[in-house]
Amino acid sequence: MERQEALRAARERMGRLTKPPRSLGHLEEVALRLAALQGRVQPELGPGAVVVAAADHGVAAEGVSAYPQEVTYQMVLNFLRGGAAINRFAEVADCRVYVLDVGVKGELPHHPRLLGAKVREGTGNLAREAAMTLEEAERALQAGREAARRAIAEGATLLAAGDMGIGNTTAAAALTAALLGLPPERVVGRGTGVGEEGLKRKREAVAKALARLRPGMAPLEVAAEVGGLELLAIAGVYLEGYRAGLPLVLDGFPVSAGALLAWRLEPGLKENLFAGHLSREPGHRPILEALDLRPLLDLDLALGEGTGAVLAMPLLRAAARILHMATFEEAGVSDRL
Amino acid sequence: MERQEALRAARERMGRLTKPPRSLGHLEEVALRLAALQGRVQPELGPGAVVVAAADHGVAAEGVSAYPQEVTYQMVLNFLRGGAAINRFAEVADCRVYVLDVGVKGELPHHPRLLGAKVREGTGNLAREAAMTLEEAERALQAGREAARRAIAEGATLLAAGDMGIGNTTAAAALTAALLGLPPERVVGRGTGVGEEGLKRKREAVAKALARLRPGMAPLEVAAEVGGLELLAIAGVYLEGYRAGLPLVLDGFPVSAGALLAWRLEPGLKENLFAGHLSREPGHRPILEALDLRPLLDLDLALGEGTGAVLAMPLLRAAARILHMATFEEAGVSDRL
Repeated sequence: MERQEALRAARERMGRLTKPPRSLGHLEEVALRLAALQGRVQPELGPGAVVVAAADHGVAAEGVSAYPQEVTYQMVLNFLRGGAAINRFAEVADCRVYVLDVGVKGELPHHPRLLGAKVREGTGNLAREAAMTLEEAERALQAGREAARRAIAEGATLLAAGDMGIGNTTAAAALTAALLGLPPERVVGRGTGVGEEGLKRKREAVAKALARLRPGMAPLEVAAEVGGLELLAIAGVYLEGYRAGLPLVLDGFPVSAGALLAWRLEPGLKENLFAGHLSREPGHRPILEALDLRPLLDLDLALGEGTGAVLAMPLLRAAARILHMATFEEAGVSDRL
Repeated sequence: MERQEALRAARERMGRLTKPPRSLGHLEEVALRLAALQGRVQPELGPGAVVVAAADHGVAAEGVSAYPQEVTYQMVLNFLRGGAAINRFAEVADCRVYVLDVGVKGELPHHPRLLGAKVREGTGNLAREAAMTLEEAERALQAGREAARRAIAEGATLLAAGDMGIGNTTAAAALTAALLGLPPERVVGRGTGVGEEGLKRKREAVAKALARLRPGMAPLEVAAEVGGLELLAIAGVYLEGYRAGLPLVLDGFPVSAGALLAWRLEPGLKENLFAGHLSREPGHRPILEALDLRPLLDLDLALGEGTGAVLAMPLLRAAARILHMATFEEAGVSDRL
């Protein structure tokens, strides 16, 4: 069924379901969007997948994180061994976790869960130099696309991206500020928990990165200059998910910055996006506003890894089930006084 | 393990898990409360159950609902056939639905999913007379207890109540106003979607009910005078769940009004309560404030049936998994700069 026709039919069915009008609030809108996306009145959602993209950031040298850079590498091992928050949440959300290395410093062991596609060992320090070349940006994007293709081939019906990279809220802030035309103060937050000094260093790093941008740069050139390898990979995950017509769930700030880039590269992608949650990071809200998305969860989360997206997957599945309810007519229920 | 000891140990473990401190926001508090409740550092949650209590309300005669009274009966059939929102949501939340008749007008067919415990065919009209006798209130409460016992015996590890009863937001408003000492305007809302006139009639009905209360009445006497049979049953569900030591999930306004009564009867019960969501009904917020609960979801829902509680069950399961994450030490991750 064509998208507009499915939406019209789903909206009509929604009005006849055995419930007071609009009583399922925000979930009704989600249900209708899923119907349009899948081109059927009664959408179906099965297993989910989250591609956790990991990479290091040269800007970590500026003291922008509460953790040392090697934590990126160590946390990737933690993902592979199943000990991280994303693993635990995925277990109870019918979601498979894929770990994608696009730029972690150090050689990671072979592992069945690890998709190795290292473009380089961390970015340049965005406070002082280009984060990466345009060709590297394209390779990172491509790696994200390939990871998503694999997740979809293995049964994902609902796709999210996750992030890991010490320093990446600084890169996400620079990318968001650049793409939305916002000053550093609006998008820089405490990330993993830096103090006042760290916050100041983050703002300065972002301001220096933005100062190198030239008018008329293409979105991918901007991302190469001020972004992060995993942010590019995240954009690739969503672009491929869009191509496959899947519902795409956003996580918090770095993931949404990657999705913002994907949207700039492919404006139609907005139709497939669902906001999993609203992060505590200040830069997240302007992205969701630009994408016109209302978050499903608001739990004061700021972890990343895709956790907020995976937590929202059961809500998307429930929303899809709304259109499988009986109508007043089918159930023999009176629909008015 | 003793409750305070489990809480202390869980808090200590929470501080060593491979994530920045407080990065899982509200879910960390949920995880710690589950640990305390279960008396173990790593809480476990399995299948859930929701007991949907149904009954009619004499106050429906005052024109306080957008639907005719027979919808209560019809919707119970819809629950039994699996066509309602609660059925659809329970399917994707590992939750079993029990339907409890404590006062539906008309004879319901035998059905394996139906727990028949009709106390009387609907309440008296609370705008003009006592809703029920004290003895009837006790029987409805007892029916809720028995339904919960059955759900627990059949494997529930997480318990919620749901409600069905045309007119029941009026009864819930009267009960809430009485128990919290609030004026009708603070607790009366549009329920299934009444207009300005209906809203006025609801406020008047509540005011008349409250005018009959005498100082010093016991909570159960108050509930018999102004409440509803399913609200009493809901209180019974939670009281029994408390006795069994289970985590108890609240739904929206009528269910939370029933839980408020349960708390007045058993002050310790507060420790077991988790707020599934914040309803659009204005009377819901004062109840959650009185119980000092923060809702997991805020999706502009106002359906009842237990839907908001069941939607939150996957979040409670995810929260329980947090304490199963690896610690920095276990995972070999650096925990500071």
